[in-house]
Amino acid sequence: MGTIAPRPPGPQASATPAEARAAFRAGTAVPTAGWADGRTQANLIAVPQDWAYDVLLFAQRNPQPCPVLDVTGPGVPHTPLAPGADLRTDLPRYRVWEDGRLVAEPTDVTGLWGDDMVAFLIGCSFTFEATLSAAGIPLRHIEQGRNVSMYVTNRPCRPAGRLHGPLVVSMRPVPARQVAEARRLTALMPAVHGAPVHVGDPAAIGITDLGAPDFGDPVEIRSGEVPVFWACGVTPQAALMASAPPFAITHAPGHMFITDARDSAYRLL
Amino acid sequence: MGTIAPRPPGPQASATPAEARAAFRAGTAVPTAGWADGRTQANLIAVPQDWAYDVLLFAQRNPQPCPVLDVTGPGVPHTPLAPGADLRTDLPRYRVWEDGRLVAEPTDVTGLWGDDMVAFLIGCSFTFEATLSAAGIPLRHIEQGRNVSMYVTNRPCRPAGRLHGPLVVSMRPVPARQVAEARRLTALMPAVHGAPVHVGDPAAIGITDLGAPDFGDPVEIRSGEVPVFWACGVTPQAALMASAPPFAITHAPGHMFITDARDSAYRLL
Repeated sequence: MGTIAPRPPGPQASATPAEARAAFRAGTAVPTAGWADGRTQANLIAVPQDWAYDVLLFAQRNPQPCPVLDVTGPGVPHTPLAPGADLRTDLPRYRVWEDGRLVAEPTDVTGLWGDDMVAFLIGCSFTFEATLSAAGIPLRHIEQGRNVSMYVTNRPCRPAGRLHGPLVVSMRPVPARQVAEARRLTALMPAVHGAPVHVGDPAAIGITDLGAPDFGDPVEIRSGEVPVFWACGVTPQAALMASAPPFAITHAPGHMFITDARDSAYRLL
Repeated sequence: MGTIAPRPPGPQASATPAEARAAFRAGTAVPTAGWADGRTQANLIAVPQDWAYDVLLFAQRNPQPCPVLDVTGPGVPHTPLAPGADLRTDLPRYRVWEDGRLVAEPTDVTGLWGDDMVAFLIGCSFTFEATLSAAGIPLRHIEQGRNVSMYVTNRPCRPAGRLHGPLVVSMRPVPARQVAEARRLTALMPAVHGAPVHVGDPAAIGITDLGAPDFGDPVEIRSGEVPVFWACGVTPQAALMASAPPFAITHAPGHMFITDARDSAYRLL
């Protein structure tokens, strides 16, 4: 999905969610990492109502890659997670899918959002990264100014109706002595992917070369560090590619929907 | 929902889930408390496919009262949570609903389970009670040989399509010094209702008399104890009564589906 360099903390970090959304609505088309610090960012996947049950059931059956934060009514581009927001305009960039193929990456999808579109907002690992960082666990991709490394695994998701596809994971190198703490902290945040799905040997989940991620960028793994794999919100996009519904709209990678919810709301303790 | 006296630990506690289900399939029609110790018991709600999206969305929007453990395909009475089980025969007693009214309480629903029936298995507080008990937190209803006290609150669930209804809670009196620990332990089990939704003043959630529960039995509250309220799996049955789908099948209260899953699988840490 190309290179998405997280921005260094800047004036965007203090933007309110409403200010961030207004900037994107006005045409600012940048990745959202570093914007509106402490507020929950979400993956978007919108499908025609005919496919909504399959998507919701797929999410229920695969809660680690697809933790659902909210579902809109048909044709309704609004969510209680961000009162006043419009899901058709307030993301910086979208992806439009036809029959499982990416056909456009516009910054506004108002004209494409039919009366039958149902939107799913899915938790994002940005939320747990702040918690890891606060606990002194390094985030190599941020240090290196890169997008996190993501890989398609050999583990199929549990299918739901017409929807099927592989589990996609993100990988962060964690010093061996901090792996247990990273696991504990993320286990407490099931709404944003929860505990790692795998620790260590990449080959065990079908990854042959950590240096060649399927999405995002490679990152350095240092001596004494262990690759730790979390279920990834790109999984639903991989399912769209594999299952080819006639039409879908998603966020563009890294260009998330910024909600009013606080990250802390998704920590159980 | 009448009196359901949890049985004292007996030979049923050591029954395997398959043995328990076989006994119920053969006609044993008793409450499941105390059976197959350590294995997860689930609430059942089955509706025609036309209503399945509303039920699944209602559960997503109200995850504390309606934590979904599994959803079957249309007409399929099987679940990976209990290989070899048949959801039409393996619960000790069912309730059959027509237009929101209870019309029968049979012990077998094979003849009523049409090709379009979709079953939802919903987490049950039995799972967290074992954890509370192991931590030395008293369970008054068990001590008193009664069913837990349940109340309809003044809090509406967030509606989903045609489905709406009030939040139903269960109440357990907890010594004040143990409330924080009870909260912590159950927060770690979001798949079985999670943390309490309310602590203390019953009137704040519309309960006028703790001695007159809407379902189950009253229990003694002793000096120094605080009423603690958890979201309750009866909530979907209350939604059926309020929303009146043409047809539905549920478990009879206290007569749960015993899965092969271990309670420990639903603890995050």
